[in-house]
Amino acid sequence: MSDEYYMKKALQEAKEALKIGEVPIGAVIVCNDSIIAKAHNMTQHLTDVTAHAEMQAITAASDLLGGKYLSECTLYVTIEPCVMCAGALGWTHIKRIVYGAKDPKKGYHIFAPKVLHPKTECIGGIMEKECSQILTAFFKKKR
Amino acid sequence: MSDEYYMKKALQEAKEALKIGEVPIGAVIVCNDSIIAKAHNMTQHLTDVTAHAEMQAITAASDLLGGKYLSECTLYVTIEPCVMCAGALGWTHIKRIVYGAKDPKKGYHIFAPKVLHPKTECIGGIMEKECSQILTAFFKKKR
Repeated sequence: MSDEYYMKKALQEAKEALKIGEVPIGAVIVCNDSIIAKAHNMTQHLTDVTAHAEMQAITAASDLLGGKYLSECTLYVTIEPCVMCAGALGWTHIKRIVYGAKDPKKGYHIFAPKVLHPKTECIGGIMEKECSQILTAFFKKKR
Repeated sequence: MSDEYYMKKALQEAKEALKIGEVPIGAVIVCNDSIIAKAHNMTQHLTDVTAHAEMQAITAASDLLGGKYLSECTLYVTIEPCVMCAGALGWTHIKRIVYGAKDPKKGYHIFAPKVLHPKTECIGGIMEKECSQILTAFFKKKR
């Protein structure tokens, strides 16, 4: 399946977050062309800054695989990971990271551009418009 | 109570990790001169890179306080936080971070020196020798 296919799945997760009033960010982790974990932001409901979509997807994927390393996996996430999530992804040695919208304020590339494992490939801009729009609309409504 | 007092508590947590074969790192979170959370590294037992002592302490403290922000709290941790943990601490707006040993390989100051909230005070070197020794002994035994 294509990157767009899996990003759509991550976007579906973002929509689940939106339904319950969370900042709409979603993620899926893919291994051998199968989705092995999906998650959305839950920081408000869990009262926990660590409950980003990526963090929960990492925990779920590692649990399923029975190993801490995700070196055969790809993470799809609707926005560029923050420093915390990129730090966690660095520990996992994940193979690929594919994100949708760029995050010019909190994205890891600003604060910690070298935090990923040297073998990790990271690309952004997949379905950028859709991933960005859902966030922009959410914050506009909040104001 | 002094920083040394609370660092001893964090070190006790590190010893709990050691007992079960985890990398011996411990943390406590203090609010109004009371320990509101304590945790130790559990990455092996939980098969999860996100299960660092600091991350678990943040989750527990936020749960207890009923809020995501720890702006009145101090985190004591036996080693300098990694990028993931520093990123999480950045989101919490924590008041102070006090760490024991420096981490010249994976410490956040190398990869993400500006990730903490601008108001967060961070000091290192409290009980540095003890915090460092427990880790050195652990890795020596592993080899």
